[in-house]
Amino acid sequence: MKVGGKHYRTIWLKADDPSVVQIIDQRKLPHEFVIVDLKTVDDVAFAIRAMLVRGAGLIGATAGYGMYIAALHAPTHDREAAMRYLVEAGEKLKATRPTAVNLEWAVNRQLLALQRAESVEEMIAFAKDTAQQIADEDAEFCRRIGEHGVSLIEAIAQRKPGEPVNILTHCNAGWLAFVDYGSATAPIYAAHDRGIPVHVWVDETRPRNQGARLTAWELGEHGVPHTVIADNVGGHLMQHGMVDLCIVGSDRTTYTGDVANKVGTYLKALAARDNNVPFYVALPSSTFDWTLRDGVREIPIEQRNNEEVKYMDGRTADGRIETVLLTPENSPAANYAFDVTPARLVTGLITERGICEANEESILRLYPEKRNKP
Amino acid sequence: MKVGGKHYRTIWLKADDPSVVQIIDQRKLPHEFVIVDLKTVDDVAFAIRAMLVRGAGLIGATAGYGMYIAALHAPTHDREAAMRYLVEAGEKLKATRPTAVNLEWAVNRQLLALQRAESVEEMIAFAKDTAQQIADEDAEFCRRIGEHGVSLIEAIAQRKPGEPVNILTHCNAGWLAFVDYGSATAPIYAAHDRGIPVHVWVDETRPRNQGARLTAWELGEHGVPHTVIADNVGGHLMQHGMVDLCIVGSDRTTYTGDVANKVGTYLKALAARDNNVPFYVALPSSTFDWTLRDGVREIPIEQRNNEEVKYMDGRTADGRIETVLLTPENSPAANYAFDVTPARLVTGLITERGICEANEESILRLYPEKRNKP
Repeated sequence: MKVGGKHYRTIWLKADDPSVVQIIDQRKLPHEFVIVDLKTVDDVAFAIRAMLVRGAGLIGATAGYGMYIAALHAPTHDREAAMRYLVEAGEKLKATRPTAVNLEWAVNRQLLALQRAESVEEMIAFAKDTAQQIADEDAEFCRRIGEHGVSLIEAIAQRKPGEPVNILTHCNAGWLAFVDYGSATAPIYAAHDRGIPVHVWVDETRPRNQGARLTAWELGEHGVPHTVIADNVGGHLMQHGMVDLCIVGSDRTTYTGDVANKVGTYLKALAARDNNVPFYVALPSSTFDWTLRDGVREIPIEQRNNEEVKYMDGRTADGRIETVLLTPENSPAANYAFDVTPARLVTGLITERGICEANEESILRLYPEKRNKP
Repeated sequence: MKVGGKHYRTIWLKADDPSVVQIIDQRKLPHEFVIVDLKTVDDVAFAIRAMLVRGAGLIGATAGYGMYIAALHAPTHDREAAMRYLVEAGEKLKATRPTAVNLEWAVNRQLLALQRAESVEEMIAFAKDTAQQIADEDAEFCRRIGEHGVSLIEAIAQRKPGEPVNILTHCNAGWLAFVDYGSATAPIYAAHDRGIPVHVWVDETRPRNQGARLTAWELGEHGVPHTVIADNVGGHLMQHGMVDLCIVGSDRTTYTGDVANKVGTYLKALAARDNNVPFYVALPSSTFDWTLRDGVREIPIEQRNNEEVKYMDGRTADGRIETVLLTPENSPAANYAFDVTPARLVTGLITERGICEANEESILRLYPEKRNKP
C-alpha cells in the first residue's frame, strides 16, 4: 500500500541491486520509516528474530527471500555442498521464531524447489523465483480477501448513502503483517480505493500497541480516515450505533470456526453480538488448523514476557525513543498474548476463496479438498 | 489502608498542626509517595483541579476540609463578612471539577452547618467537625460495603479450600478514590485482613492506567496478592476458570440498576455473563441517580482530551518521569471515558446497607425512603 504517496510492499528486491532484499524496520514505526538492507542469512535471521518484520504472511515471505540470499552465498563448486549449505541456512531461519508455521512452510517449499536444480546457477534462479512466488501469492491471497470482503462494506454503504461505513479492527492484521493489502484491512483498502467512504476505529491493542503503532500508521499513510481508541472503548461505540462492522485477523482458526487472535478479540466479539454488529474474521487459508475441533480448549495460548505489560516505549517531545515503567516496580504482571473467540460469536470468515460461515460445513464447502483429511 | 506498614487515610489533619490538611499526591503514584500540605483554599482548589486527589468520595472529603481551611482564614471581626468569605470560597471549590456531585454536596453541607454558628470561633469549630464527619462517614460507608461484600468472597473460599479466590477489578475504586477502604476493594481488604486468601487481577484501565498506577500500588502496599493484566485479557481468564468474581465501582448507577463506570467495564460484564462469573458493583448510596431509568440512553458520557490516548507517562530507567507519544503524530484519537453496563449483566450491587439485585424493586427495598421521590 502507499507510504508518503508511493506504493510499497513490506519486502522487495533492491531496485539497483537484486542481490539485496529490503524491508521496513517495523520496530521503529510509527515514529520513523526506516528501510533496512538484508544481505546475508544472518541479517535475515536477525530481522525475523528481533521483529523488524512480523506477521504470519511477512515472516513466511522473509524466510523465502532468506533462502534466496542463502543461494547467492552457497559454495559454487559443488551442487551437493551447496545443498548442504542451504539446508543449514534453512535450519537457522526456522529457529528464529519456532512457533511461526509459515516460517517452516516457506523454507521447506524452497528446499523442495532447489532439489530440482542441476547447477548452483539454477539454484539461485529457482530460489529467486520461489521467493517471488511466495511473496506474490501472499499478496494475491490478501487481494482476493479484499475483493470478497468489500461486498460487505458496499452493502452497508448502500444503506447509509453519504455517510462513512464505520469499521472496528483490533491489533494489526494489515499489510504490514503480510506482503501487501493485509487480511482484515484488505476489504477496507479495497473500499477506500473504490471511493466508498470508510472510517476505521483502531483499537490500541495493549500491551504491544499494534493498533496505535502499526494499523494507525498504515491507514494514515494510505489516506484512510481512522481514529485511535483505547481497547476499552469498542463496547461503548457499539452500544451507540457507532460501529457498522467489525473485521479482525486470525493467528489460527479451527475447521469448526473458533478463532485465535490477539488477546481482546473475544471481548469485542461479545460486544458485537450484544449489539447486533456483524463480526467478521479475514484470513488466508494457511491460517486454518485442520486438526483442531475445540479452539477454546485446544489452542495453546502463548504467555509472553510480563515486561511488555509493565513497560512501554514511545517518542519523547525532543524526538528520543524512551522506555517507561507504568506499574509499581514490584507488582507482578501476566501477559497472555491471544484469546479464542468461539465460532458462535463469529458472523463469517472472509478467505481468498470467498466468504463462509464460521462452522465446519460451511468452511469445508469452500475447502472440499480438506474433507477427508485428519 | 496500609502504606509501608503504616495506616493512612487519603486525607487527614497534620498531627502537630491541625490547621494544615495533608493529602497524598496521587499524580506521582506509583513511582513516588509524596505527602502534600494544603494550607489555603487555593491549595485545596489546585489539589482537586490538578487531580492530586480524585475519586468521588475523596473529592467530597477534600472539599469538606477545604471549607474548614476557609473558616480558618475568614475575617474574624464580623460574622456576616466571614460568611460571605466562606460562600465565596465554596464557589471557588465547586468550580474546580464541575461534574463531581460530591463537591457541591460537601460545600453545601458545610455552609448549612456554618449558618448555625454564632461567632467566627464557632464557625471554625463547626467546619472542622463537619469536615471530619464527611470524611468519617465516607470511610464508614466503605467499611460497611466491605462487611457486606466479604460474605460473597467467603462463600467462594469455602468451595475451594486452600486456594485463593480470584477477583477481577477494573480501574481504581480503591481506598485512594475514597477516604479509606474503597468501594470495589473494601470486600477484598476485608477478606485479606480476615485471612481469607485472595488474589486480584488488576486491569490496567487505559487510557489513564488507574489499575496499573493506583490499584496495583494500593493492593501492593497493603500486602494483597495481585497481578496486573492488560484490559484485553479478562475475557481469556474468565473462559479458563481463572476468575471467581468480578467487583467494580461505579460513577453513577440508575435506580433501575444500570451502571456507569470507567470505560471497558461493559466488556468485562459481557465476558462474566458469557462464562457464568458473578459480576458485582460496589457503591455507596450517594452514587445512585434516583432520576434516571435508562442508563445507556440517559447517562451522558464524558469525552476527555485525546492526548490521554496518544501520550503516556511513566518512569525511565534513571528515575525521571517522562511523557512519550504512542501513536503517529497526526492520527486522530477519541477518548470516551465511561460506559454503561446494563442492569441485565449485573449480578448484584454491594451498598453500605447490604447487597441487592440490580433492579428497581430490589434497590428500593434497601432504600425505601426513595420510593416516592421523583
